[in-house]
Amino acid sequence: MAATAGPAPEAQASGQHGPARVSFQTAPDRYRHWRIAFDGAVATLTMDVAEDGGLRDGYELKLNSYDLGVDIELYDAVQRLRFEHPEVRAVVITSAKDKVFSAGANIRMLAASPHGWKVNFCKFTNETRNGIEDATASSGQAYLAALNGTASGGGYELALACEYIMLIDDRSAAVSLPELPLLGVLPGTGGLTRVTDKRHVRRDLADYFSTRPEGVGGAKAVAWRLVDEAVPRGAWNETVAARAAEFAARSARPAGAAGIELTPLDKTRAGDTVSYGHVSARLDHAGGVAEITVRGPGQDPQGGAEWIQDSGARFWPLAVARELDDLVLDLRTNEPGLGTWTLRTAGDPARVLAYDRMLLASRDDWLVNEIILYLKRTLRRLDVTSRSLIALIEPGSCFAGSLLELALAADRSYMLAGVFEDAHPDSSPAVIAVAEMNLGALPMGNDLTRLQTRFNGDPDALAAAEKLAGQLVEAGDAERLGLVTFAPDDIDWAEEVRLAVEERSSFSPDALTGMEANYRFAGPETLETKIFGRLSAWQNWIFTRPNAAGPDGALRRYGTGQRAVFDRKRV
Amino acid sequence: MAATAGPAPEAQASGQHGPARVSFQTAPDRYRHWRIAFDGAVATLTMDVAEDGGLRDGYELKLNSYDLGVDIELYDAVQRLRFEHPEVRAVVITSAKDKVFSAGANIRMLAASPHGWKVNFCKFTNETRNGIEDATASSGQAYLAALNGTASGGGYELALACEYIMLIDDRSAAVSLPELPLLGVLPGTGGLTRVTDKRHVRRDLADYFSTRPEGVGGAKAVAWRLVDEAVPRGAWNETVAARAAEFAARSARPAGAAGIELTPLDKTRAGDTVSYGHVSARLDHAGGVAEITVRGPGQDPQGGAEWIQDSGARFWPLAVARELDDLVLDLRTNEPGLGTWTLRTAGDPARVLAYDRMLLASRDDWLVNEIILYLKRTLRRLDVTSRSLIALIEPGSCFAGSLLELALAADRSYMLAGVFEDAHPDSSPAVIAVAEMNLGALPMGNDLTRLQTRFNGDPDALAAAEKLAGQLVEAGDAERLGLVTFAPDDIDWAEEVRLAVEERSSFSPDALTGMEANYRFAGPETLETKIFGRLSAWQNWIFTRPNAAGPDGALRRYGTGQRAVFDRKRV
Repeated sequence: MAATAGPAPEAQASGQHGPARVSFQTAPDRYRHWRIAFDGAVATLTMDVAEDGGLRDGYELKLNSYDLGVDIELYDAVQRLRFEHPEVRAVVITSAKDKVFSAGANIRMLAASPHGWKVNFCKFTNETRNGIEDATASSGQAYLAALNGTASGGGYELALACEYIMLIDDRSAAVSLPELPLLGVLPGTGGLTRVTDKRHVRRDLADYFSTRPEGVGGAKAVAWRLVDEAVPRGAWNETVAARAAEFAARSARPAGAAGIELTPLDKTRAGDTVSYGHVSARLDHAGGVAEITVRGPGQDPQGGAEWIQDSGARFWPLAVARELDDLVLDLRTNEPGLGTWTLRTAGDPARVLAYDRMLLASRDDWLVNEIILYLKRTLRRLDVTSRSLIALIEPGSCFAGSLLELALAADRSYMLAGVFEDAHPDSSPAVIAVAEMNLGALPMGNDLTRLQTRFNGDPDALAAAEKLAGQLVEAGDAERLGLVTFAPDDIDWAEEVRLAVEERSSFSPDALTGMEANYRFAGPETLETKIFGRLSAWQNWIFTRPNAAGPDGALRRYGTGQRAVFDRKRV
Repeated sequence: MAATAGPAPEAQASGQHGPARVSFQTAPDRYRHWRIAFDGAVATLTMDVAEDGGLRDGYELKLNSYDLGVDIELYDAVQRLRFEHPEVRAVVITSAKDKVFSAGANIRMLAASPHGWKVNFCKFTNETRNGIEDATASSGQAYLAALNGTASGGGYELALACEYIMLIDDRSAAVSLPELPLLGVLPGTGGLTRVTDKRHVRRDLADYFSTRPEGVGGAKAVAWRLVDEAVPRGAWNETVAARAAEFAARSARPAGAAGIELTPLDKTRAGDTVSYGHVSARLDHAGGVAEITVRGPGQDPQGGAEWIQDSGARFWPLAVARELDDLVLDLRTNEPGLGTWTLRTAGDPARVLAYDRMLLASRDDWLVNEIILYLKRTLRRLDVTSRSLIALIEPGSCFAGSLLELALAADRSYMLAGVFEDAHPDSSPAVIAVAEMNLGALPMGNDLTRLQTRFNGDPDALAAAEKLAGQLVEAGDAERLGLVTFAPDDIDWAEEVRLAVEERSSFSPDALTGMEANYRFAGPETLETKIFGRLSAWQNWIFTRPNAAGPDGALRRYGTGQRAVFDRKRV
């Protein structure tokens, strides 16, 4: 890793806990693995992975294989395209390597990584690909994969996240999912689910395809729906340009709008506290707890879309989404020992609701739309985070509208009934508020609102909660309506909360992860929940099995010239 | 285990491969753990587990805890109630133990079992509970849980499979899911999914409930929807009887019908061949393959519902369903080394279609309804079987209607184009036939037909296939229509099939299991697919983790007086 480029300085700092902390903050001028080029309404993201640019030592990123560092840059690029480039209506992803699009996740990196790293790596790459699909579906930025050479494994899975896949037709280029035959694992980034549920490849053809390390190219790849178009080399450039122009022409992105810059986050770490402008976390390593606080807006909103545009990255909802997003990624990656996150808010609930109303009123504006979508994605990141989430609703908090979603995302919530009689006898009791923002603008991955998921199968309770939209609700009513789990009073609060948090830390972290992954997604499933809930769970299981990760397993033996030794018993 | 009671003799025979083979055949006069009593339209299934009646040595089945042997008897009872007792319209499940309903799966048994045994045990118990729900929903036999004492873990999960749950209200009885706090694993029999998705317990209350080893009883259990009714001890017997009578009164089971006996299966094992009347399997231990053949009916159907009633268990569709069901269970449990199953049929496709037509024409008859439902459940068992399934469609086969489902359930199918020129030059080429039976009577666990799942997202292909209903289709057309995967001719057949089977045996069994579990369930999800696909996958992962199954893990340390030692890192 070069000293002056690549991941942000934070990554170089030696952390207290294990290897260098990973930073998720970067910017195009620091990219080592991607290039962005702009041509009117079309942006081209070119993958050109630096072999010596791995986030950790011990592997070379050959053939556009990638590690977390490569994907952090991709995530950054996808985010900036949305916010900084309203003029971009189609994004072409291609490769700078000759005859290779991407070989997927780096195998030596995977083989050398501990289990938790593999799982978190897959989770983040999945989230980035879901974000690509979200940009296509909701932002008018359609992604096209221009596979100028073979796309294997995660390389093909990146293409699967795009709306349209072009494969060069030169008798050697192919798409493939060689994980099963070569590595004894599954494609880790949604491949199996997207092949059948998005591209509608027939399941028996998908089965055959996923056992062929050499993959499928040309007309057969089109006939089987693995790609949309096979393009002769001679017509490649013009066809890619033509398709990008076609998708761009269908977009509803505005003409003449100016982007806003995603300026560097104002993030500091002092001792055991991580702070941003509106979000902070106290890291209690002894207790295994991160205490997260989100602060509401410091002023009333000053206008509509124009003021938002002028405020840019300082605009409170956008700043909160960015800060929370970064904090979730930071803690997930760098603080696996903090198994419980408490979620608090501080501020004026009426002010949060005022910002929400303004956002919804201006939703036709491209930037406002982007901000709401970003908040949606950040909350979804929380939903799939394998940490116990406990919301603590105290006097002075502002769990209203968009911030109420934090409490609804939590595994449990505690709301103080009354006030802290000794400490702050004159304060006002905590209130929460359901509002229009909770009724559809921020759906979970299962396409339901968090309220709908909470009251899954109980339409009366859902209607009662939704009817309250806009009202400030105190603890007794909130508990009665099922909006919070428990509403202890001052006498019981400290003990009850302490017990809940300490108890959580005493349970098996794995069992908690499994339980939370199930309970958080009550009700129907979607492609996204299938990827995180079904596919990832199977992959995690396989990652733990000696047939993959053992010293003689396929993942560890790949590239050594030795064949894997399998325990042939099925379970 | 007593020599003269309990599991069938097969279980005592010393198998070639590992410990005594488990038999899934039993009958009420051999039950050691359950009693059935009949009172008009109400049957009572009483759990009274014999402590010394474990299927394996090394554990005692205290407090109505259970192992596979206990559940095999339950499965048998549920099946016989459906076929042998048309007069039964409500089934009460209760316990003969004082103040205890059931403590769930036996912990020492789980702790001592290898991973594959745990996984298969959970799968079978899940299938039995799904069968209980199927009897309630489709057979007019409603199951009621009469919890005369505490139901913990699998004990409560058994209750969750019932349509109505009564809990005695005596200040000590409770329902609980203590797996997470006590054992560091998940409830293994659908508990988490049914709590939220069937009983609609709010997810945060479900979270809290699942961390309380002592569970929840009385009015709170009702308010939280964990049970339907808390009944004082004084009113217990009359209330249970009243509720059973109410459910019985709603049933559409016929009056005055006579049941048919599920006679012992005619099963033999000679060398490496397992044979029944219509089903056989050749076990190739060297190749890791089971070659399964299902034979079509030997005669034309001779009449309608009356003839079926007279034929009883000899009636071809019922006999095939029972034999295939037993074979699947036998091979899954006793032959984990046979990772690939080839599926062949032999017989006259027109005759299979004639039986199918007769079944569908008489579907209003309770017995015919039961037979179709049994076939449905048997095919679903195949769908969730962690073996690679390859259908081989050759001349002389009868993959038509109900038996076409075997090919549609397979991961891949190969259909010979033409005939084997050297061996049987005068035979007729193989044909397959879509028929009405494929269009809705045998849905998968995802509530789609296997054709709908196959053509998920491709309505034109689905319509083209469905339009063929009733026609015999040769290989070329079958391949073109997407009904089979490949249609090699005589020259390529042997080599192509051999390669497919041998290659399958060379892959990681775990990766195959994960891939198949994903591809087989393209499209939407249901409670049932969530249990097998999401919940079970997480449970399997947790079962492999040192925090549960390691020497210091919670599952292994339970009952030793020593606390589990956890690696606190989240993944």
